[in-house]
Amino acid sequence: MQTVVIAGVGLIGGSFALALRKAGFEGRILGVSSERTLREALSLGIIDEGLPAAEALPRADLVFLSQPICRILEMLGEIDPWLKQGCLVTDAGSTKTAIMSQASKHIHRGLFLGGHPLAGKETRGAAAAEADLFRGRTWVLTPAHPGDIQAAPALEFRGWVEKTGAVPVVMEAAEHDRIVALTSHLPQLLSTALAAMAPETSLAGPALLDLTRLALSPYEVWRDIFATNAVNIGHALEACIEKLETYREIFRGEAMQKEFEAAAAAARQLRGR
Amino acid sequence: MQTVVIAGVGLIGGSFALALRKAGFEGRILGVSSERTLREALSLGIIDEGLPAAEALPRADLVFLSQPICRILEMLGEIDPWLKQGCLVTDAGSTKTAIMSQASKHIHRGLFLGGHPLAGKETRGAAAAEADLFRGRTWVLTPAHPGDIQAAPALEFRGWVEKTGAVPVVMEAAEHDRIVALTSHLPQLLSTALAAMAPETSLAGPALLDLTRLALSPYEVWRDIFATNAVNIGHALEACIEKLETYREIFRGEAMQKEFEAAAAAARQLRGR
Repeated sequence: MQTVVIAGVGLIGGSFALALRKAGFEGRILGVSSERTLREALSLGIIDEGLPAAEALPRADLVFLSQPICRILEMLGEIDPWLKQGCLVTDAGSTKTAIMSQASKHIHRGLFLGGHPLAGKETRGAAAAEADLFRGRTWVLTPAHPGDIQAAPALEFRGWVEKTGAVPVVMEAAEHDRIVALTSHLPQLLSTALAAMAPETSLAGPALLDLTRLALSPYEVWRDIFATNAVNIGHALEACIEKLETYREIFRGEAMQKEFEAAAAAARQLRGR
Repeated sequence: MQTVVIAGVGLIGGSFALALRKAGFEGRILGVSSERTLREALSLGIIDEGLPAAEALPRADLVFLSQPICRILEMLGEIDPWLKQGCLVTDAGSTKTAIMSQASKHIHRGLFLGGHPLAGKETRGAAAAEADLFRGRTWVLTPAHPGDIQAAPALEFRGWVEKTGAVPVVMEAAEHDRIVALTSHLPQLLSTALAAMAPETSLAGPALLDLTRLALSPYEVWRDIFATNAVNIGHALEACIEKLETYREIFRGEAMQKEFEAAAAAARQLRGR
């Protein structure tokens, strides 16, 4: 792997570039982004060069798509003619089935391997990028076919993912999207609902602040997630509504004790204890 | 105010004792609690003396009830004969109408002023008590009659509350209970629901950990809250279910943008920015 093209040099793309360098990558890192972002990324030393896609992609051994999901979908429809035969194309989109389906239609010259690093922070943009953003985090890889993950360029990319400190987890795109509907998309909607319902009050303790932090997230990020994981999110909302209907019936009684115990056990399991 | 009796020398009661001392209180602090708790509180220097209620209460200028809500309700039914004429009785229960109603029936020799310091932490018990627990926190005071807050012992108690670093907020018990159903009790139920629904997975990001922290809370604390604020919690659950039904209809479309903007504005307001 000599040349990496990062399309979308924001927090994730920029952090991946810095993480590659820190892990010892000595090849060339090219950025494809808006002019303003490229200038910023160049001045921060995140990329070596900023280029239009049509000039950068023919040089790429690895293409890393780290734009908003809908922009990734557009790119996948456009880039195939520019790709070097046998390159690896991957992405960082937080839903996977729509992206896998679009890639299977349009990417033929390169191998596409879906990806979702579970990392982030409140500040966005290249200026917030950091080499250790992925350290200790799960990095989901979703091959179109199980064998794809064993192909040489996929193995090499997976090796670099491990060198960033992330923990690769291979699963099917459909399973990924079903799980994140419950672990990420539903929490976002609950936080938004809770904040939208909050009275103006001085009676906000730390619990409410914890639970309404996600409500500060920008809609722009979520529009694409909602659009590309609608069925799973619909099911998650439905299941949550059913759960709350049950709580409405039982919360006064001792049956609620079992719910608290099961929830506490699950919360401990999520924390690995 | 010469002598303070703290009934229930746990995290809140113990912290109030330490906060009084730190604020310069030079009188006597008596503890009423289980034998084991009294021994612990004595060895930690939190109280000066541990006594049965019947011996401690006749000496009290201030009675601070910081037990679980249902134990406070029981105490209010029992203690009046032991009270010194004109003393102040207050509490730290996290729901207020049931407690105010019980006090109005049974407390005649002293003045009862409801209280709810919005403070706490994950560890319970006297050993976790700290003098600065209330610093910067809201301390709700719920007088049975507006004039009660102007009575000399109430003014003196309020002065000590301020000296702990807390910010007293006077409101009606019914209003308090309506608000905390949305700001505290609903968040707990949402966190419990979310944890109970969480799949066993490595795909748990920081968002899910934030939102399931409350699910670790012990049921024993919540049983009493659910029992004494059932109507408001029922309404809060109903409103939340309606909100989620709406989200289920609109989350794919642009109408969701307005919800995100309103929720973000509310979340910023809760953070005072």
